[in-house]
Amino acid sequence: MNTPNHPDVPGISPDTVTCGPITGSRKVYAAPASHPDLRVPFREIAVGDPKQPQIRVYDPSGPYTETDARIDLEAGLPSVREAWLVARDLQTIQGRAVQPEDNGSVGPDRLVAPCPARRTLRSGKPGTPVTQFEFARAGIITEEMVYVAHRENLAREQALQEASSRVAEGESFGAAIPDFVTPEFVRQEVALGRAIIPANINHGELEPMAIGRNFLVKVNANIGNSAISSGVAEEVEKLVWAIRWGADTIMDLSTGRNIHNIRSWIIRNSPVPIGTVPIYQALEKVGGDPVKLSWEVFRDTLIEQAEQGVDYFTIHAGVRLRYVPLTAKRVTGIVSRGGSIMARWCLAHHQESFLYERFGEICDIMRRYDVSFSLGDGLRPGSIADANDAAQFAELETLGELTRIAWDKGCQVMIEGPGHVPMHKIKVNMDKQLALCGEAPFYTLGPLTTDIAPGYDHITSGIGAAMIGWFGTAMLCYVTPKEHLGLPNRDDVKTGVITYKIAAHAADLAKGHPAAQVRDDALSQARFEFRWEDQFNLSLDPDTARSYHDATLPKDAHKVAHFCSMCGPKFCSMQITQDLRKEVLAMEAEKQAGMQAKSREFLDQGAALYVPSEE
Amino acid sequence: MNTPNHPDVPGISPDTVTCGPITGSRKVYAAPASHPDLRVPFREIAVGDPKQPQIRVYDPSGPYTETDARIDLEAGLPSVREAWLVARDLQTIQGRAVQPEDNGSVGPDRLVAPCPARRTLRSGKPGTPVTQFEFARAGIITEEMVYVAHRENLAREQALQEASSRVAEGESFGAAIPDFVTPEFVRQEVALGRAIIPANINHGELEPMAIGRNFLVKVNANIGNSAISSGVAEEVEKLVWAIRWGADTIMDLSTGRNIHNIRSWIIRNSPVPIGTVPIYQALEKVGGDPVKLSWEVFRDTLIEQAEQGVDYFTIHAGVRLRYVPLTAKRVTGIVSRGGSIMARWCLAHHQESFLYERFGEICDIMRRYDVSFSLGDGLRPGSIADANDAAQFAELETLGELTRIAWDKGCQVMIEGPGHVPMHKIKVNMDKQLALCGEAPFYTLGPLTTDIAPGYDHITSGIGAAMIGWFGTAMLCYVTPKEHLGLPNRDDVKTGVITYKIAAHAADLAKGHPAAQVRDDALSQARFEFRWEDQFNLSLDPDTARSYHDATLPKDAHKVAHFCSMCGPKFCSMQITQDLRKEVLAMEAEKQAGMQAKSREFLDQGAALYVPSEE
Repeated sequence: MNTPNHPDVPGISPDTVTCGPITGSRKVYAAPASHPDLRVPFREIAVGDPKQPQIRVYDPSGPYTETDARIDLEAGLPSVREAWLVARDLQTIQGRAVQPEDNGSVGPDRLVAPCPARRTLRSGKPGTPVTQFEFARAGIITEEMVYVAHRENLAREQALQEASSRVAEGESFGAAIPDFVTPEFVRQEVALGRAIIPANINHGELEPMAIGRNFLVKVNANIGNSAISSGVAEEVEKLVWAIRWGADTIMDLSTGRNIHNIRSWIIRNSPVPIGTVPIYQALEKVGGDPVKLSWEVFRDTLIEQAEQGVDYFTIHAGVRLRYVPLTAKRVTGIVSRGGSIMARWCLAHHQESFLYERFGEICDIMRRYDVSFSLGDGLRPGSIADANDAAQFAELETLGELTRIAWDKGCQVMIEGPGHVPMHKIKVNMDKQLALCGEAPFYTLGPLTTDIAPGYDHITSGIGAAMIGWFGTAMLCYVTPKEHLGLPNRDDVKTGVITYKIAAHAADLAKGHPAAQVRDDALSQARFEFRWEDQFNLSLDPDTARSYHDATLPKDAHKVAHFCSMCGPKFCSMQITQDLRKEVLAMEAEKQAGMQAKSREFLDQGAALYVPSEE
Repeated sequence: MNTPNHPDVPGISPDTVTCGPITGSRKVYAAPASHPDLRVPFREIAVGDPKQPQIRVYDPSGPYTETDARIDLEAGLPSVREAWLVARDLQTIQGRAVQPEDNGSVGPDRLVAPCPARRTLRSGKPGTPVTQFEFARAGIITEEMVYVAHRENLAREQALQEASSRVAEGESFGAAIPDFVTPEFVRQEVALGRAIIPANINHGELEPMAIGRNFLVKVNANIGNSAISSGVAEEVEKLVWAIRWGADTIMDLSTGRNIHNIRSWIIRNSPVPIGTVPIYQALEKVGGDPVKLSWEVFRDTLIEQAEQGVDYFTIHAGVRLRYVPLTAKRVTGIVSRGGSIMARWCLAHHQESFLYERFGEICDIMRRYDVSFSLGDGLRPGSIADANDAAQFAELETLGELTRIAWDKGCQVMIEGPGHVPMHKIKVNMDKQLALCGEAPFYTLGPLTTDIAPGYDHITSGIGAAMIGWFGTAMLCYVTPKEHLGLPNRDDVKTGVITYKIAAHAADLAKGHPAAQVRDDALSQARFEFRWEDQFNLSLDPDTARSYHDATLPKDAHKVAHFCSMCGPKFCSMQITQDLRKEVLAMEAEKQAGMQAKSREFLDQGAALYVPSEE
């Protein structure tokens, strides 16, 4: 562990950044044969039984979980993409100068210093490919695509060899998950718009990943300060903490002061794509009054954040003036912050949304840096009562229209989805999204399957997330236990991420992902053989599993016990079954021997199908 | 609160029994017009806005949550069924004498005294109806059926009046949930075997409830001491604690000493059905060696527990000798304790299970006390790898065969189901169960949708439970966070119950239960109107919701705030929408006024469809 101390940076206490491997695992890097220079990260889980293979899992946690992690927040993470970007036909730019309002016009005494890490600032040129989508359409396989292919393939060869009968067992509802992911497959999926690789050309620290229905289901975690509480140090640590437990992307939803400078720390130290909702910062710049928003301030904010390296923007361009009245009789109206801001603007000005009217210009900006669209569902339902209503689906139709415009402009696109939806209304959300948005990746918030359990909304929504992930959603935005009630703390973030890893993995299993079951089988095998340490280490949260076990069984005496505290030694079904198995297998062997004797007898008799009757 | 103290009862500390109402609610009793003598319990949630109705919810928590609960564990709960039972053609019996082995032959110094409450002991006569099933088949509506009908109807009249358009909105997969439950409907469902009312005639303290696909989805919680830890006081409190948060039935899975006497305390103080697995106690009686089990000791245990008042027995009569080899190549073999015990017995004796061979005699005993069957799935899968395999479905077929035998003998039956099942394999479990077991109620454990999250198996299984509940499972057996790892404590039990209440309620919503959405709507409305206290009180766990809120917002200042800590005052979408709504509604009113003016104009012109052109 290496947690440097920077006492001179106000608001940042890098001591709090969590480093070191997850218990029982180690970080490994591997490269595909074709690109020995790539260092694709995996987590390898130690398995105690030497007869069993080590289990390699997908790992978004970045260098922080290296055994001897050397983290320097001021320097930022190493830029794994720098050499690739240098080789592309991009221009080096000066960049927009930082304005006082970028940090909420905070006075010098309260100003958080920006991250001092310096990077070459780039933008794309017209007419030559910049975005992954443009490269893909041009038939070019980028390094990002090679990286993603290798990253997604973990354990798939092994799964193919060992359990070929299981490979196609799932129900994928029309997804086309390949037995094996090739760089060319990634290119095709990106070119078709069915997957995105969010990767701003100014975010070199990024370890590329894909979001798409034919890849592993991904999880997003939200972080952010707020007007009421939270400090800078907490935000950087929240990123590190969330990716440690498996978050694949992070949305920075900060709304307070120092927003620009805090973001610089987050991006320079993030190995995962960072998403934002630029309208939040734009609103800060106009003093918090939605009516005062304008295209100019929004445009300026897009450029500001794109140059910082934000990988995807949530843009609520589907909230059109004429849809606003459709929400008037809802139980919970408009619950999306961005949606309500834009609705307010439209109504106050009696004018069509500038996000909709200027959408082409927005595309041009985002293309220049390869910022992906996350088309926001500003009219998503905020309660079971409002699910699947006219407002929601009207907006979805517009998002489909905008998807095609963005593709024509060369941009990558995903689509945000609900929200609050009872189970029987979930699938039609997926079906409509696929149909209306040309199979662009869907990215949903839950959905929550009931409203009656605030304090447990990670669970009410985990149910819906697992289901919609199975149906085809490519990324699930997590919900923490504090949703609707307050700001999540460290434990809440972990609980939210683990819950969503469960949902995503359950979805992968049900879709029939070729390698998904490898880890389930390894853990179950360990459980059956009373390899307690393996069982802990193979779980999503080894520390919690171990501590729960130790809470009711004396620590040392029972860690190798052939029973657990639920049944006790006399009643252990696993132990009884292990004994049984030996007997049954012995019996079967005996029967087999008998059959072989019979078989020999049969052959001795000339292998006649009918033996002449003896009478 | 009233928690009497009994220092003279060894092992029992009644101080620990939790009494008093759930925060923000009060217990109310109501009767149907036809039976003014009945006292059917409900929980009424206070709603602060006088314009909004109070919300009445189903309440299995018994007298413990009365405002001034007067609990005397020695006396047991009042026998609400006594007058009904007196009026029936039953015989009073002496009962089987308690044997030392009933309490594990524990010495006098360690013997827990039995609950001193005395009750008239009864058994049925041949030829006259005893069980709810027999009454139902004979066309007789019992008081239990009237009680159940009134209990299940909560808020349904209101729902019908207020939201008639929503009533039939769910997808019930062939269930036939009525708009309104009548006693005759209950009788029909019981007569068809589609619902059971577990109600031993020696459990007069029971507040009757139904388990069936056309009623609210129910939740079971397991309690029990174990060979390693836990004491008596904890077990009684666990019952009270689990039903407080919504458990509809309790299974006592105790396996240690004093098992008989502890059970007497539990049953005399339980307003909910108690289930057991008699083979556990039978095994204790033969020193823990499955091979020594016999029909005689099992038969004796059935009578012992039936006379104590156990309402349903899990009996693994479907584990047949010839199915055992089907489990030999499983990843996790046999994981059901009862299943592995019987498999061991069958294999050791090379003989068919005595539970299967003596099934008719078992039925005769259970009918005599109206103990319901919970036909155990001894061969359920214990891992994703083993889901839906030959062993599991072979047993299910036998359970269907046994269901018909039990019905012929006059018994009530439900069927236990898995276990560990990936999402895409869940529905076929329900479909097969309905087809093979003649629509007898299904009662599943989860299922867990992945094996990789020990420590979070309430969530991995809550996903599967919500889905299978939607598909038609009548009761969901809870799983706590400690599943597979250790014994649940108080917090784990609560977390397990709340998680399963979420699953059950999400299922009710998706099935289109006419009244399910009333509470969701009330809570969402409270959320939208910033009625924080109402939002807390309407939630499944008001204390947790309140404490999460107070953790990030200063207590007094913000409890009435028109925003929350997630967005802060400037960004509150709910606040923006409330403003918007006023504007939109004003616009619509204006438009309406304009239309009316137009309309008047139109009428003034003689209502001609085409106005003559002015040219």
